[in-house]
Amino acid sequence: MSLSINNLFGLEGVPKEDINQIFDTAFSFREVLEREVKKVPTLKGITIVNLFFEPSTRTKNSFALAEKRLSADTVNFSASSSSLKKGESLKDTVQNLCAMKLDVVVMRHSVPGSVRMLSKFVDAVVINAGDGTHEHPTQALLDMMSLKEKFGKIEDLNIAIIGDIKHSRVARSNIYGLKTMGANIKICGPPTFMPADVEALGVDYTYDIDEALNFADAVNVLRIQKERQGSGLLPSMREYRQEFGLTKERMNNLENKVTILHPGPMNRQIEIDSEVADGENSIILEQVLNGVAIRMAVLFLLSGNR
Amino acid sequence: MSLSINNLFGLEGVPKEDINQIFDTAFSFREVLEREVKKVPTLKGITIVNLFFEPSTRTKNSFALAEKRLSADTVNFSASSSSLKKGESLKDTVQNLCAMKLDVVVMRHSVPGSVRMLSKFVDAVVINAGDGTHEHPTQALLDMMSLKEKFGKIEDLNIAIIGDIKHSRVARSNIYGLKTMGANIKICGPPTFMPADVEALGVDYTYDIDEALNFADAVNVLRIQKERQGSGLLPSMREYRQEFGLTKERMNNLENKVTILHPGPMNRQIEIDSEVADGENSIILEQVLNGVAIRMAVLFLLSGNR
Amino acid sequence: MSLSINNLFGLEGVPKEDINQIFDTAFSFREVLEREVKKVPTLKGITIVNLFFEPSTRTKNSFALAEKRLSADTVNFSASSSSLKKGESLKDTVQNLCAMKLDVVVMRHSVPGSVRMLSKFVDAVVINAGDGTHEHPTQALLDMMSLKEKFGKIEDLNIAIIGDIKHSRVARSNIYGLKTMGANIKICGPPTFMPADVEALGVDYTYDIDEALNFADAVNVLRIQKERQGSGLLPSMREYRQEFGLTKERMNNLENKVTILHPGPMNRQIEIDSEVADGENSIILEQVLNGVAIRMAVLFLLSGNR
Repeated sequence: MSLSINNLFGLEGVPKEDINQIFDTAFSFREVLEREVKKVPTLKGITIVNLFFEPSTRTKNSFALAEKRLSADTVNFSASSSSLKKGESLKDTVQNLCAMKLDVVVMRHSVPGSVRMLSKFVDAVVINAGDGTHEHPTQALLDMMSLKEKFGKIEDLNIAIIGDIKHSRVARSNIYGLKTMGANIKICGPPTFMPADVEALGVDYTYDIDEALNFADAVNVLRIQKERQGSGLLPSMREYRQEFGLTKERMNNLENKVTILHPGPMNRQIEIDSEVADGENSIILEQVLNGVAIRMAVLFLLSGNR
Repeated sequence: MSLSINNLFGLEGVPKEDINQIFDTAFSFREVLEREVKKVPTLKGITIVNLFFEPSTRTKNSFALAEKRLSADTVNFSASSSSLKKGESLKDTVQNLCAMKLDVVVMRHSVPGSVRMLSKFVDAVVINAGDGTHEHPTQALLDMMSLKEKFGKIEDLNIAIIGDIKHSRVARSNIYGLKTMGANIKICGPPTFMPADVEALGVDYTYDIDEALNFADAVNVLRIQKERQGSGLLPSMREYRQEFGLTKERMNNLENKVTILHPGPMNRQIEIDSEVADGENSIILEQVLNGVAIRMAVLFLLSGNR
Repeated sequence: MSLSINNLFGLEGVPKEDINQIFDTAFSFREVLEREVKKVPTLKGITIVNLFFEPSTRTKNSFALAEKRLSADTVNFSASSSSLKKGESLKDTVQNLCAMKLDVVVMRHSVPGSVRMLSKFVDAVVINAGDGTHEHPTQALLDMMSLKEKFGKIEDLNIAIIGDIKHSRVARSNIYGLKTMGANIKICGPPTFMPADVEALGVDYTYDIDEALNFADAVNVLRIQKERQGSGLLPSMREYRQEFGLTKERMNNLENKVTILHPGPMNRQIEIDSEVADGENSIILEQVLNGVAIRMAVLFLLSGNR
């Protein structure tokens, strides 16, 4: 029982067998999470460093909980409290941490590709917790696990991804993973938010949200970065909601029933209305729970590969 | 062995039997704290989140130590490093944390009533670690435990509470708890610091510190918020010390021996002189130790209720 | 098996027997660090507080890892998130923490002598993790352990220390420790960086780096504080590198082979060139690993003394 990969930089190129094995392991860890004692001794004596160079709540807490529930030892490192202030290079920081005999590095950084680049300097297993606009593989794995839980399969599902595809590592990892698993994907958003390599990604796209919703068994709604407003890329929030938001009215008018995913944190009443986010078709809170199980599975399977 | 309450929002309405059971449990945990190995496996596999939306040293550390010594797993969340910066609502933050299958939420927030309000959205046990000017129940429990340790009982004790009663959650929780346990209470402070509902609280009050001290077996000295100076509510620090401070001179002139409590952090030479704070009648450091034991007891008893 | 000292304030006055015992213990813990399960139950139930009043990455992480691998419980306290903001005195902060029955305090503070001073108020074992320009004993112990690993002994080794000796707690602790262990020491740096008590320290000094390097079996290269530039004490970075930097050219021209140590974080291309720092004579990453082992040894031996 071991994966073909030694690190998790992204889902691009990760084979179907690996993803299925991660799912199987995650579903059995999810059973642990439903118990009264939500803890297993699996990674006792293993040391994991959480290296977050960007702020994070849910991903950081989700990894932290996954690590504790596997009985691993953890070190937390955030850029603000670090020697980086003293001008130490990222490479030196990481090499020094790893010289202390760490087994796994979970890393988030704002620069695309930085996680893979840094893995060259360390002996430890490296897991990408989000690198800029590149990939966020554990998020896509938990999204897919939630789909599998809901539909019993991923193959042949119709999945729409809506929002700022261009700048979204969540979208990118979902596209790679869903294609590998045999789903049909349609991306949707304003033209300014379409990735330059949309053809290379090999997915359908539309600028019409109703077309996307009518196509979809499930829709993954991306968070709008309000900071981009006024940059010329994004209309006003009111206009965005009108054209691309999952409003109550729009969803009520749909003939088919669409399952709702959102990676969080949500901008309620912008990309998604509260009635939709909290409605019966939403599996947003299941995603959160599955996130812990997926991270336990990835940590366990990759640690075993050492 | 279980409490009648399922959460701890405050001491208002908590019955005497519950408080006595918390004391009994806390005294037995205190024995654990005197051992060389200060740890029990009681809450192994239980996950506790410490949600502090206001800065805190001693309450946060006291809960953290209590949790570790019960072998619980913990997640720490402070507002500054959180998605709240990205505009996520408090409700979403808490719901997301709890979707990860947390058992207990320990929460501090600046808004009175916020802790009870948030408990509606979560499945976990909720413990108030201070909500604005409302209540700080574990502080009052540790104050009362320290009185019980010193005097062998709480009933019929004469307790003075001195300072800014109006804005103090410590005072309010002590008033509720001490009344339930049958103590006699006199509050004392400048008229601007008296609560509007002093009659409803059903306690005696005086503006004369010497009257309060002559009445008291023990006095709980509140911290003066220097920030309030210049607000028209508070005279100068020098005047406050003169009129309401536990000065060395004032205490030496007393005929009776008064036991001294302070919730910390102290403003030495303002509300209390160092000679008094560090003197033989002070039980301030006992309060700190009892705080860990009380929090162990509350966490243990409420977790058992699930 | 116990040390003659009860706390570790510095290496001044610590006898050879104690240092050798720390080394022996550290080398056996280092074997633990090479195992798959890098953890021992030695300090289970012991509580350690890490009190850092100055920013730190590597020392803080190194202690944190040492503590986890000994199975101790830890509380972390940093000044910024503390009651110190509310004006609480350092003494009160420390006393309050220790009233919670802590066994060991690991402390860093910017004021020389502060660690020893504070130990008077607490019952716990106190370990200095750096106090201003005074001492940083665990750093010197790990430097010496790395020398012992490399050379099999410390006695009669020729050790050069290069840089800002005057402001360096690392230099000071190394001087005390190396003298006790019988090494020969030559310090080297600009005249403005020589300590006022150089004669009292009883070490040779030179302003000529080539003389120092020709003398040395090993050289400990100190970090240059760029902040001091423009203070009149330090020439430009370019001039410093020219005169006191371990440049590739200078090292290539040496006849003897010199082992390189650096406490980190490095200013690459200023006090040391990358080719030298990453070269075959560098034991800088060994220092990092030995740091964890040394701190495990110190924590273990001093806890046993209680």
